[in-house]
Amino acid sequence: MEKVGRFNGIQAHKWEEFAMRKVLLATCLGLIAAVAAGGALANDELSKMSQNPKDWVMPAGDYANTRYSKLNQITTANVGKLQVAWTFSTGVLRGHEGGPLIIGNMMYVHTPFPNKVYALDLSKDNQIVWKYEPKQDPNVIPVMCCDTVNRGVAYGDGKIFLHQADTTLVALDAKTGKVEWSSKNGDPGKGETGTSAPLVVKDKILVGISGGEFGVHCHVTAYDLKSGKLLWRAFSQGPDDQLSKDSSLKTWQGDQWKIGGGCTWGWLSYDPALNLVYYGSGNPSTWNPKQRPGDNKWSMTIFARNPDTGMARWVYQMTPHDEWDYDGVNEMILSDQQVGGAERKLLTHFDRNGLAYTLDRTNGELLVAEKYDPTVNWTTGVDMNKSSPTYGRPKVVDKYSTAKGGEDVNTKGICPAALGTKDQQPAAYSPDTQLFYVPTNHVCMDYEPFKVSYTAGQPYVGATLSMYPPPGASHMGNFIAWDNKTGKIVWSNKEQFSVWSGALATAGGVVFYGTLEGYLKAVDAKSGKELYKFKTPSGIIGNVTTYEQGGKQYIAVLSGVGGWAGIGLAAGLTDPTAGLGAVGGYAALSNYTALGGSLTVFSLPQ
Amino acid sequence: MEKVGRFNGIQAHKWEEFAMRKVLLATCLGLIAAVAAGGALANDELSKMSQNPKDWVMPAGDYANTRYSKLNQITTANVGKLQVAWTFSTGVLRGHEGGPLIIGNMMYVHTPFPNKVYALDLSKDNQIVWKYEPKQDPNVIPVMCCDTVNRGVAYGDGKIFLHQADTTLVALDAKTGKVEWSSKNGDPGKGETGTSAPLVVKDKILVGISGGEFGVHCHVTAYDLKSGKLLWRAFSQGPDDQLSKDSSLKTWQGDQWKIGGGCTWGWLSYDPALNLVYYGSGNPSTWNPKQRPGDNKWSMTIFARNPDTGMARWVYQMTPHDEWDYDGVNEMILSDQQVGGAERKLLTHFDRNGLAYTLDRTNGELLVAEKYDPTVNWTTGVDMNKSSPTYGRPKVVDKYSTAKGGEDVNTKGICPAALGTKDQQPAAYSPDTQLFYVPTNHVCMDYEPFKVSYTAGQPYVGATLSMYPPPGASHMGNFIAWDNKTGKIVWSNKEQFSVWSGALATAGGVVFYGTLEGYLKAVDAKSGKELYKFKTPSGIIGNVTTYEQGGKQYIAVLSGVGGWAGIGLAAGLTDPTAGLGAVGGYAALSNYTALGGSLTVFSLPQ
Repeated sequence: MEKVGRFNGIQAHKWEEFAMRKVLLATCLGLIAAVAAGGALANDELSKMSQNPKDWVMPAGDYANTRYSKLNQITTANVGKLQVAWTFSTGVLRGHEGGPLIIGNMMYVHTPFPNKVYALDLSKDNQIVWKYEPKQDPNVIPVMCCDTVNRGVAYGDGKIFLHQADTTLVALDAKTGKVEWSSKNGDPGKGETGTSAPLVVKDKILVGISGGEFGVHCHVTAYDLKSGKLLWRAFSQGPDDQLSKDSSLKTWQGDQWKIGGGCTWGWLSYDPALNLVYYGSGNPSTWNPKQRPGDNKWSMTIFARNPDTGMARWVYQMTPHDEWDYDGVNEMILSDQQVGGAERKLLTHFDRNGLAYTLDRTNGELLVAEKYDPTVNWTTGVDMNKSSPTYGRPKVVDKYSTAKGGEDVNTKGICPAALGTKDQQPAAYSPDTQLFYVPTNHVCMDYEPFKVSYTAGQPYVGATLSMYPPPGASHMGNFIAWDNKTGKIVWSNKEQFSVWSGALATAGGVVFYGTLEGYLKAVDAKSGKELYKFKTPSGIIGNVTTYEQGGKQYIAVLSGVGGWAGIGLAAGLTDPTAGLGAVGGYAALSNYTALGGSLTVFSLPQ
Repeated sequence: MEKVGRFNGIQAHKWEEFAMRKVLLATCLGLIAAVAAGGALANDELSKMSQNPKDWVMPAGDYANTRYSKLNQITTANVGKLQVAWTFSTGVLRGHEGGPLIIGNMMYVHTPFPNKVYALDLSKDNQIVWKYEPKQDPNVIPVMCCDTVNRGVAYGDGKIFLHQADTTLVALDAKTGKVEWSSKNGDPGKGETGTSAPLVVKDKILVGISGGEFGVHCHVTAYDLKSGKLLWRAFSQGPDDQLSKDSSLKTWQGDQWKIGGGCTWGWLSYDPALNLVYYGSGNPSTWNPKQRPGDNKWSMTIFARNPDTGMARWVYQMTPHDEWDYDGVNEMILSDQQVGGAERKLLTHFDRNGLAYTLDRTNGELLVAEKYDPTVNWTTGVDMNKSSPTYGRPKVVDKYSTAKGGEDVNTKGICPAALGTKDQQPAAYSPDTQLFYVPTNHVCMDYEPFKVSYTAGQPYVGATLSMYPPPGASHMGNFIAWDNKTGKIVWSNKEQFSVWSGALATAGGVVFYGTLEGYLKAVDAKSGKELYKFKTPSGIIGNVTTYEQGGKQYIAVLSGVGGWAGIGLAAGLTDPTAGLGAVGGYAALSNYTALGGSLTVFSLPQ
């Protein structure tokens, strides 16, 4: 049994020092070139830009992934008067995840496949300055598990970076939209697709990959900002996990790690002071646990990596030997908070498995692991006894173990469902309240594993699912406030459907999120009291952002129903078990909304 | 030379009396059945419903096609405070013409192909009560000349009537969306398509047909409201024009009338007191005038027909032997006004040819025919001398005659362009100001006819066009107020692009329209002063409507750029001469908006 947390952290650190030397020369040369060109590193510019609350320069607003804005024109007292200021249709149907970037007077809006990018001039009546629409083989669509989503673009060094569905990472001139370079990050023929938002760190652009339902061997890869040259690639499992030699190999049977998933389609965070990037890895492939004995490291794992080298500093596997598709890709939110009288550098993560984790992000020490939905029943909790051989592991309830149930047995009533108590929809953190605002799913499932053979580019799922609200509940979502130090829900608002939209916290004391029916909602950060709601054109699975333009604070959100929860609507599926079980669970959504991507922007009246 | 106007009216009337007898028995039987069932005629119900300004029960709001509402909560004083109340995405891209019906707490929203219909409950947060989506052969799309538009549904007898792209006229239970009957109105294999809104008159549903660019032999047809049985069909030309035997045959060479166009895809009006329906017929096919000598009657003609029999009471051909594709399908607006001291029953029509006509609708007497854009140059005006052999005919300027120019000659600088000074976008009439509010195109063209052979289902256009603003003008549209008694523009607002949206006049003294960039605008009915504008998600080619719900007045408009003017965006065309010349003319539109259908609903703040 591998130890986790601090132990791995120390072990990894040594290995990293060795590997660091290998890439030092290349990095230094790059650095010299950048300095010679008179340019500061892109992340110096970005770090500075992210301090300006008028802009929204990276997918989560800042490197810490807090989705918190210091803008405070819109307050709990006046948010009820919010109005729609302007709107913009993207011209694309299906699910619109992510949100726009705002840099000065420019806004960059992305879409799902075919992955259009619009540059709008906010100072000129939001006119379209340029539009980019890649030509992509539509055959990528059938290998996108959970709608044709894309979670957004990144900015750095005067360029807009887009990770296309076909895994092309493209750098566009932010002023003109001209393609500066493009690199291929994967092969859709093997089920490798691009859905995640990249992150610019220093002179690199980092990007993950999707394909956990196709047996993809997933990784995070760093490309050179200027040229698109591949600088390092860190796989989630196998000999190239950039952690410690063979740290994961022995937790897989044979060479199953080669088709082992551990995908990396979530959000990336970065701590410039510690020089570490953080992200989670997804489910091991297949979903049939009997077919892949072992802990399947480092699937379902929080990674802390050195962005210069790709080497892991520490790891923590949340769900060894996953039996439920509890992808660990959800975002890591970085905060500095007082814990037990001492200032701690924390990392808070709301996992698909229904547990919210608080760790020391310097070393991976596990501080808190608690259920953030009381219906979570597959585990009784995490072993927090540091001297225990199972320290850090969740205690699995036999009744809900699909591995114990075995192949072709339908294990019923597992909570949460495969799409987790939370999926990709990012939470927000307010330093004012020291609370986390979490869009959650309130959904359970029946799960029947079956034997499946691997064929490159073909689904490698190995389980049939159905999803439904927990017993006695008629609602399928909650929007909650979470205390990451005590591991407790502070308040919880029921929502009819899963909250599949990313939250926004603001210095005005107002928290925003969207609903699958299409409402943008504003609530009081302290109490959760609903202060405003507005029905946007379609269901919201995008993330709420805010910016200031011409002295006025705006709230912006993409609507356009879809994603996993909305896949029935998005792909026109009707069989209840289709969409990996989502079609039946969310069938009622069609009574409330229809497809269509558009941006809705709000402000206070003149 | 055929005489026009009153003369034809009298002639037609006699013929009609004879033909009336033929259908009298069937009509009477239907009437007896309706009375026996205890039901009043559908149009008694409809006429009454259309008096209730809270509803919007037919495409134009009323039978007179005024697009005027007695609602007056929203006034010139408060319209500046208008807000978006709610929005609804239709899930369909491409051009959204027409507008929703509102009947009690229900709203019926239609879309372009695939012609979805949504029934929304306005009293229950606009939830989707039912949705209808026909299965149609997508091969109909290439035979739709000017985008895959649909101009709306009709209501009568508890049913919603939809004229699908594939010409299926379908009756849906207004409560459940269940198909009650369907009838096939044409054959897309011959280029016959459905784009127009039907009109319920008494126990019948009347509908036209599209296909003037495919040599379709066009007609208006009446179906039985209860059963969908075809009751009468009146062709625009040929022996079955239901006017007078052979009244049109001799104005065609040979049997060209069989592929002669004269399509009927515009709006229908109805005067219950006179028991006449009014509509216009479109261009003769082909667009190459040399190929079809003669006046090509009754293309380009205003028809007054008896809805019981289909027989014409009077006709007036506006553009004999069309040389410019000046379709005569635009709506007939019925008003009762004082002219020269006497109350007259008027019909006002803004033709594609750039002339606005005022006629006595009882007999077709021509009262006024004046240019409603000063740049109109193909004619010096209409011969108004009743004793002249050319009475009622436009005087054509040789320089702009494409017939005189001949085949393969590019006649330049013709104003207006083929899409007319106004196209389908309906004007509004306010009895308060006695002014007409007209969305117009300010566009000229070069026109080069060429010889074309007829093949069923293939384009039969026979001309290449390019479109552009008039010399010296940078704008391509005007929104004007028109005095139909004097034939003069009262005020005119410039718009960057053609105003392709239908207008709404209200008792609050506010007139509304939409722009191709996507703005909903509110102007003062008296002065044209802009009082409010809002950027909806996409360009507006829909018609503005208003209704009252829960004591509050709402303004609703479909956005979703497309139609002929927006065909470049809608169909992804880039060749400037594509889209019958519209692609080049409106290329700049892509700097302002993108595709996507959605309804935006406005109201005053609480």
